[in-house]
Amino acid sequence: MSARPHRVAGKRLKRIDGLGKVTGKYVYASDFALPGMLFGKILRSDEAHARIVRLDVSRALALPGVRTVLTAKDIAPIRFGTAIRDRTVFAAEVVRFRGEAIAAVAATSLEIAEAAVRAIEVEYEPLPAVFDIEEALKPGAPLVHPGWSDYQALPVFDREGNVSGRSAMAGGDVEAGFAQSYRVYEHHFTTQPVHPGYTEPRTAIASWDGNGDVSVWCNTQLPFDMKNLLAEVLDLPASKVRVVVPGIGGGFGGKLRVGVEHIAAWLARRSNRPVKVMTTSEEELTDAYPRQPTVITLKTGVSEDGLLLAREARVLLDCGAYANSGPATAAIALQIVAGPYRTPNFSYESVAIYTNKGATGSFRAPAGPMGNFAVESQIDLIADDLGIDPLELRLRNVYREGDKGPAGDVLTSVSIEDSLRRAADAIGWKDRRPGPGRGKGLACSWWLTTGGSSGVYVKINPDGTVTVVSGAVELGSGAMTGAAQILAEELGVDLTDITATDVDTNLSPYDYGAQGSRTAFSVGNACIAAAKDLRRQIAELVAPIWGVAPETIRLEDKGVTSGNNRLSLAEVAALSQRTGGGLISHGTSIQPMPVFDPTRVKNHPLPAWTSHSFHTHAVDLSVDEVTGEVSINRYVVAQDVGFAINPTYIEGQIEGGVAQGIGQALSEEIVYDGGRVSNANLTDYKMPTMMDMPRVECILIEKPSVNGPYGAKGVGEPPCIQPPAAIANAIAAATGVRIQALPITAEKIALARAQDED
Amino acid sequence: MSARPHRVAGKRLKRIDGLGKVTGKYVYASDFALPGMLFGKILRSDEAHARIVRLDVSRALALPGVRTVLTAKDIAPIRFGTAIRDRTVFAAEVVRFRGEAIAAVAATSLEIAEAAVRAIEVEYEPLPAVFDIEEALKPGAPLVHPGWSDYQALPVFDREGNVSGRSAMAGGDVEAGFAQSYRVYEHHFTTQPVHPGYTEPRTAIASWDGNGDVSVWCNTQLPFDMKNLLAEVLDLPASKVRVVVPGIGGGFGGKLRVGVEHIAAWLARRSNRPVKVMTTSEEELTDAYPRQPTVITLKTGVSEDGLLLAREARVLLDCGAYANSGPATAAIALQIVAGPYRTPNFSYESVAIYTNKGATGSFRAPAGPMGNFAVESQIDLIADDLGIDPLELRLRNVYREGDKGPAGDVLTSVSIEDSLRRAADAIGWKDRRPGPGRGKGLACSWWLTTGGSSGVYVKINPDGTVTVVSGAVELGSGAMTGAAQILAEELGVDLTDITATDVDTNLSPYDYGAQGSRTAFSVGNACIAAAKDLRRQIAELVAPIWGVAPETIRLEDKGVTSGNNRLSLAEVAALSQRTGGGLISHGTSIQPMPVFDPTRVKNHPLPAWTSHSFHTHAVDLSVDEVTGEVSINRYVVAQDVGFAINPTYIEGQIEGGVAQGIGQALSEEIVYDGGRVSNANLTDYKMPTMMDMPRVECILIEKPSVNGPYGAKGVGEPPCIQPPAAIANAIAAATGVRIQALPITAEKIALARAQDED
Repeated sequence: MSARPHRVAGKRLKRIDGLGKVTGKYVYASDFALPGMLFGKILRSDEAHARIVRLDVSRALALPGVRTVLTAKDIAPIRFGTAIRDRTVFAAEVVRFRGEAIAAVAATSLEIAEAAVRAIEVEYEPLPAVFDIEEALKPGAPLVHPGWSDYQALPVFDREGNVSGRSAMAGGDVEAGFAQSYRVYEHHFTTQPVHPGYTEPRTAIASWDGNGDVSVWCNTQLPFDMKNLLAEVLDLPASKVRVVVPGIGGGFGGKLRVGVEHIAAWLARRSNRPVKVMTTSEEELTDAYPRQPTVITLKTGVSEDGLLLAREARVLLDCGAYANSGPATAAIALQIVAGPYRTPNFSYESVAIYTNKGATGSFRAPAGPMGNFAVESQIDLIADDLGIDPLELRLRNVYREGDKGPAGDVLTSVSIEDSLRRAADAIGWKDRRPGPGRGKGLACSWWLTTGGSSGVYVKINPDGTVTVVSGAVELGSGAMTGAAQILAEELGVDLTDITATDVDTNLSPYDYGAQGSRTAFSVGNACIAAAKDLRRQIAELVAPIWGVAPETIRLEDKGVTSGNNRLSLAEVAALSQRTGGGLISHGTSIQPMPVFDPTRVKNHPLPAWTSHSFHTHAVDLSVDEVTGEVSINRYVVAQDVGFAINPTYIEGQIEGGVAQGIGQALSEEIVYDGGRVSNANLTDYKMPTMMDMPRVECILIEKPSVNGPYGAKGVGEPPCIQPPAAIANAIAAATGVRIQALPITAEKIALARAQDED
Repeated sequence: MSARPHRVAGKRLKRIDGLGKVTGKYVYASDFALPGMLFGKILRSDEAHARIVRLDVSRALALPGVRTVLTAKDIAPIRFGTAIRDRTVFAAEVVRFRGEAIAAVAATSLEIAEAAVRAIEVEYEPLPAVFDIEEALKPGAPLVHPGWSDYQALPVFDREGNVSGRSAMAGGDVEAGFAQSYRVYEHHFTTQPVHPGYTEPRTAIASWDGNGDVSVWCNTQLPFDMKNLLAEVLDLPASKVRVVVPGIGGGFGGKLRVGVEHIAAWLARRSNRPVKVMTTSEEELTDAYPRQPTVITLKTGVSEDGLLLAREARVLLDCGAYANSGPATAAIALQIVAGPYRTPNFSYESVAIYTNKGATGSFRAPAGPMGNFAVESQIDLIADDLGIDPLELRLRNVYREGDKGPAGDVLTSVSIEDSLRRAADAIGWKDRRPGPGRGKGLACSWWLTTGGSSGVYVKINPDGTVTVVSGAVELGSGAMTGAAQILAEELGVDLTDITATDVDTNLSPYDYGAQGSRTAFSVGNACIAAAKDLRRQIAELVAPIWGVAPETIRLEDKGVTSGNNRLSLAEVAALSQRTGGGLISHGTSIQPMPVFDPTRVKNHPLPAWTSHSFHTHAVDLSVDEVTGEVSINRYVVAQDVGFAINPTYIEGQIEGGVAQGIGQALSEEIVYDGGRVSNANLTDYKMPTMMDMPRVECILIEKPSVNGPYGAKGVGEPPCIQPPAAIANAIAAATGVRIQALPITAEKIALARAQDED
């Protein structure tokens, strides 16, 4: 497929949603409004762990303009959750973190709703709390969910005490491996909670119709999951819930799970009016889905020439008060701590743990930056100790085509060596320490594209334009532009001829959702299937007219041809409308699940992963000698994208991921003071700005995957995996200081230097 | 097909859009609103025919809150029209009827917009006008469109002077037929303009996005036609126009053509804000699309025993100032004046004529009531004269299976005799004049279902429910419930498992539109096609699992079965999502066009007609001896519906059609005083109320059509065809007075009686 010359796919074309977005006309969920709608606000807990002994809403209800006040006792007592059904819409008897929703108000204005929230009276009886994951594992630690044995949960994860999930992966004989090692290294690493940093707060507008059906306009990444979740908490059949995503201003995994949709839907149901709920920055930083903090222990044994012989890893992952995707993220971490390295003997364990803090989630490349920070920091530590160049040490150990990965699946389209060499070349690796306080670092990794199914409806309009109806949300990545380029390529039209509609779960075919780098990949494959069917329909319609064989019919240049015969696609579409219901079709796609070796894998959710990608980041930076402030001079990413459907938006994805990675590396952290977030605002929570961002030099490697459209691989998640490790390694090269706890703030560097000098 | 026992189709189930409508939660276009929208109002001409010599909008523009004032010079000078492109959005130099749009205003409130319209200054120079169609045909008559030779038009219609279209149909030798006749009768009939009487005024809300695409929410019956029309007048590719129909409160053909959509779109474009425009009752009665007034001359020769030997007919049809569907309606009239009667020699001509009155349109069964009033009144006049019972005279002449119709097409599924006998039996025909001032009348007719293409997308959701996406609007008839019943039947689910989505031209497959009694018929056929494909997909998915042949797989009772194997449809749909993009499909349908004999037909648009239906109305009424007031005692309709998909909604359709027919028969008329409508309000324009309505007794005949779903025929239009003729015949039976000009008001009856007594 990828050998043929492409006319649309692979080109740097403007995105189909671009003009609306740059002109401000595009309607995001947060812009959406309904006539007569009310405004909802949420009362949140002031305590990290406490029993609610009094909850009096009477003063709130009495305020003019207040239409509804809801608490746990007013709604169906239904538990929901991704891995474990451990959460309710409102905390009932007990609050488990500071910021947890206790009640909600709908009023005729936002100001009245805020006043009503303040007017609700709550009295708490504090309970012992636990904030640290290592403390939480100790016998006698306060239990976040003492009575949880009757919660429903996915059967795949072990759980007990404060452990919400435990997974493991092992192969060979790790003790024997250590025994035969030349040296064995053990290091500890910690990573912090960071917010996904989407621009648009989570928003939902809910409205009930006369049939008792509810429509929710929101900015979820997974409209079909949201539909099912809402059906659960509203105690309705799923067919009575409709989820529409008018537009979404970034998600990065932070909008995979329910935000305020369920609260908007309940408020609208009780007030019999449409209700809009939108979060504030404070709510985002106290009750959203930040990346899980982790504590990682890595023990690695190597031969004298640096070959990895054995590795033991333990990943402790802080879920916060509700498990959400924590257990699954912990399981994914097992693959990341393996690194893209051949390791004959290994034993990896991951544990997801409850604490009395806000729930966490699946931020872009879940488990990626944490595991990679540990693995790639340690590789540099080992290289230093063995006196081997870190690039050389990596090249000696990376996977080759046909190797088995740690889960026993055979690796194909392996390009890690190529990405290492090209990133190192581009950054000028030979000169790793070009001057005082300046250094270069690199980090490599691998990732897997999430599979799952996608369906599309496609129609060719009688003016020759094409409409595709998909259930996949355009997150802002350009992925739907990529899928549209594939469809345009297949149908022989221009990208500007394609319209992709908004997602409406009533109208759109099912899609597994905008997650796991899968959108362009999976929707693109569904588009190829639909185009194939349309070519068949066109051939059956036109071939008899021309008296030619159907196989000779081709779609090209907005037309249908066979030999010297030609009709425009518009003419054929109009003909089809006159003789049938028009050129309409559907296509579906699914990726086969990787075959994991059950003797190696324990309690793994076997995510629907497919198609590996490999990538290396290299950075050149300077560290201020006095303040410890880091300035990035150059940043290079060499990423295997399989086939670059639209290089411009792939580069955009990479730039954005690197920005998030730099934030995690250097400055971002949701700071907990006990159970209280002490920097719950966008002044004190420090995301990188344009001033902090280097130009990101992108090298797109195209080693075709076996199952992506034209060989494409998922590209969205990987770019934020390596920045912490690459930057940590460059800082070590520049300063000799090795920081093993993210973020690597200027203060930490300066303090470590001061200690070194002591 | 219709022999098999049905589980859903044919049952009296509740309509899928019912609950929302009865609870007031359903959102009609007139309920629809967008945040920040402006309100539009239209300035309309005070003159029937005049040159605009001054048009000054400066005072209007200066009013606070006015955002845009548009006149013809502000927008693209594009002509549009159905048969002839004779109209522009605003009258430019000349106004052609009183009520024509000259300018429009968008303002922040309706009150300001109204004030702004009043503030526009217009000066006219009156031109000679013509209001009567017979006058309009005379040499030297004022021309409504003097410079129209350069207008684009469909080539099918002859046109010259004030004639916008002329069609003819002839067979045999009509002069020879008259020569051999025992008697020849010639009568003249006139019919009046009546409004379709939909509850919801025409409404449009337009909004432009950042890509320069426009979305228009409106209550059109033909969203895809509307999309094309708007693209024309906005000078845009059709792909940049999206039409959405949230809901429509009745149409009856009055919402086939553009109402205020183009004006809303232009106002929104120029003001850069969403704009809503909604008509008032006065605007509805002066510039909507009422049924065309006609003058019909009918000359019929018969044998001594009453066999029709020859007929000549001339139908003059008043289009008003713009042709719209007038020429096509005139052509349809040719089939109606033939009656459902064998006539060996005939010559029919119809002429559509411009006058300086409001444009007219395709009200339910266009040409039907007018032609039928003439034909069926004359049959009774002939029967009286020959001393033959009117029922018997009809039975001697009606078409039989296999006869050729006047256009030369072979008639199938002919049931007219059955309907005549059953209606007559039900009304107690033997006793036609049961007492003083009381009489019975009957009238029969035929009709054809409009064909055209329909496409649907269908998906089976993982909870076993089904969603159908169609481009056909639910007008209120229950037709989409009918189509959903067919889909439910085919998939083995309940009607309540089916969701039909709103129409959005971006999302929905093409549909020829809610017109011509075609919706349940044509969308039903498309649903059968989609269900067939879904059954194939399901069989391919499940047969290998069970190890059975795909042909053994059946869909029944919300499940998939083969022998003793069974999975619920929900399980199979969920399986399909895990292994592909889910159970999604598409289906299309088209009806073959009837084959007309070109030697018989001249300038006929050959509408996409299919599948005849036959029907008889019978009425028993009393006439007040003093006032002439008519009271209907009983009303019977025997209609061949082919297969009654849902008897309840078919009966509802019949009741509604009879109500409209009674209005046309007895009370409704848009009264012109010169060029001015003198009763442009709902007090003086007299539609029947519930107090005027008899119970309508419905006899549903099921003679299967060859091409409808389960044999169904179109049912929507016919019920309003016969009331005027049946009532006129009953009044004649009751009083001896024969009124040949509609409406037959009490005044006309009383005056005619007084003249008889003179």
